[in-house]
Amino acid sequence: MRRMDDSPLDALVTPAALVDLDRVEANLRRVADYTREHGLRWRPHTKTHKTAELTALQLAAGAVGATVATPREAEVMSTVSDDVLLAYPPVGRGRLARLMALPAGTRLTVALDSSEALDGLGRAARDAGRTVGVLVELDMGMRRVGVQSPDDAVALARAITTTGGVAYRGVIFYPGHLRAAVSEQGASLVEQTTRLGGFLDALTAAGLRPEVVSGGSTPTLWRSHEVAGLTEIRPGINVLNDRNTAAVGACAWSECAFSVLATVVSTAVPGQVVIDAGSKALAKEEGLAAGGGYGALLDRPDVLVRGLSEEHGLLDVSATTWRPRVGERVRVVPNHVCAAVNLHERLHVLRGDAVTTSWAVAARGW
Amino acid sequence: MRRMDDSPLDALVTPAALVDLDRVEANLRRVADYTREHGLRWRPHTKTHKTAELTALQLAAGAVGATVATPREAEVMSTVSDDVLLAYPPVGRGRLARLMALPAGTRLTVALDSSEALDGLGRAARDAGRTVGVLVELDMGMRRVGVQSPDDAVALARAITTTGGVAYRGVIFYPGHLRAAVSEQGASLVEQTTRLGGFLDALTAAGLRPEVVSGGSTPTLWRSHEVAGLTEIRPGINVLNDRNTAAVGACAWSECAFSVLATVVSTAVPGQVVIDAGSKALAKEEGLAAGGGYGALLDRPDVLVRGLSEEHGLLDVSATTWRPRVGERVRVVPNHVCAAVNLHERLHVLRGDAVTTSWAVAARGW
Repeated sequence: MRRMDDSPLDALVTPAALVDLDRVEANLRRVADYTREHGLRWRPHTKTHKTAELTALQLAAGAVGATVATPREAEVMSTVSDDVLLAYPPVGRGRLARLMALPAGTRLTVALDSSEALDGLGRAARDAGRTVGVLVELDMGMRRVGVQSPDDAVALARAITTTGGVAYRGVIFYPGHLRAAVSEQGASLVEQTTRLGGFLDALTAAGLRPEVVSGGSTPTLWRSHEVAGLTEIRPGINVLNDRNTAAVGACAWSECAFSVLATVVSTAVPGQVVIDAGSKALAKEEGLAAGGGYGALLDRPDVLVRGLSEEHGLLDVSATTWRPRVGERVRVVPNHVCAAVNLHERLHVLRGDAVTTSWAVAARGW
Repeated sequence: MRRMDDSPLDALVTPAALVDLDRVEANLRRVADYTREHGLRWRPHTKTHKTAELTALQLAAGAVGATVATPREAEVMSTVSDDVLLAYPPVGRGRLARLMALPAGTRLTVALDSSEALDGLGRAARDAGRTVGVLVELDMGMRRVGVQSPDDAVALARAITTTGGVAYRGVIFYPGHLRAAVSEQGASLVEQTTRLGGFLDALTAAGLRPEVVSGGSTPTLWRSHEVAGLTEIRPGINVLNDRNTAAVGACAWSECAFSVLATVVSTAVPGQVVIDAGSKALAKEEGLAAGGGYGALLDRPDVLVRGLSEEHGLLDVSATTWRPRVGERVRVVPNHVCAAVNLHERLHVLRGDAVTTSWAVAARGW
């Protein structure tokens, strides 16, 4: 229903980023119910949406705090959350200074995997008169960051306990990447549990039992309870979802809450429709869905974005008889919502077809 | 040489976008000399840098005006240029309203390929009391936008001459895409000349000889004079250059004027170095250079960015004995500078190793 201060979708200049608030609320309820049922703490990764408003909705729905990756995200999310986890090594004087300048009331925890990062953080925290929580980052097989062995985890955890300005709180890991999740989700969960068990046993034996065991991402979200020892999950994408998440079965198409509104600008090349959402509006991110491409129409998922240049999206209309005219509008669900959101200044918030408000994507940049 | 108000590179929080001003100036001189020598007008595409400051430098070096793709770019560039070409179909009431609100003194020209776009533009221009120049967009084989045949070009040009609020100025095309330029640059230039000749002959025979014949992009830049009939070129990338441009031979590595400063944040996984510039700082754009990957180090071009996640860049150090420590800084030349610049709020401007100023990437968004 449109209220007096709502504005119609038609009034937006395209391309425009849209968030369907009914779908967001349903997505929030689902993950809140799931984590409550399984006794997991829910600390959503806010890199997906980069807005204070959506973090506030997540907290209101039951999230225990915000996960962030950058100083800017920490700054923006600390305006609405008093418990912030930086799931990223805090390296460099500039980054550390920004973190130490967060509100004194913010409970800050960071992830790290090296003594260099620990030393720098400890020094900055002592100088700032803060105590910063630290999680040891474990490599659970993604081979991106993280200590490699239980012995290395014990050594780093022990170093944390003897460093001033920081407090040892536990361990953190990223549970493998999307492709692995698609092809062998079951196997990778068993492997995760086994590998994680090795780390947890070694830490416990050394008197360093982790209070926090933080994992969980959107692709494996609904099976997080099968990973023994996990205390907290950090899904980012699931609040908005995207084409890749639907492709791996971690959401239904009807749970996709983000789309980019675009206008048909050319049909001059026969059999092709060009829209004004290109790589600068949708992001040129690999597709996991059948048929490839960079996105699909929300209301016609058989119409794919098969090519992107900076300001042009090329729609493949070969699977349909639909032939739009120049000026017609469409909504595109991109492959990867985090990358797409990051290209927009504002998210326009919909109830049905009415724009009720807009949110600044305030945590873009660093 | 550092001046009193310069600041050191070390003071920047990473990732940070850098522009080497000495290299920019050399790149500007080269294209200015080339276009002067061959009697071509130079109208750089400003989507590459999206800054008013760099457009001003291009105009000072001899550019005749600015090329833009979006209303925001038109707005920002019209603050420094009184001659703006929108090389994009102006479709949609919101976009048209924004274009009509440009300063009255701005000579505006737009490209289009449909009667729908022409009708909307004519109506908006008449309502605004403006006369907008129009170029007929030709498809020269890229199959993205553009009329398909000389007959269609004549019909659209004729329609322009009978529409109020607009003035027929000529034709425009995009000379094929990068991959074609790599594999068959010579062949594609011959083909372009032939195909373009067909369009120009038909228009001339119909009494619609184009005053402007606008083409030219960075990959084919230095052979633009071989395309018979061309009056103007619109290279974007060449002011900054990037790894793909070097890979196709359209610039030397030493002409790359853009890089992203990054910090090593993890070396925990053996044989791998992780930096804090990921896909949100470098853009995940296909590489044309040997070895693949998403970028290479400015000072060590044999070190490739072989993987990207949102805030992590994975360096492949297998081709070198260089093993940086956590905290060390590097500069990355991305594959595609336009996509990378678009991810940054500001460009930090260097003379040597000193930051002399920064420019807002003011034309991001639409």
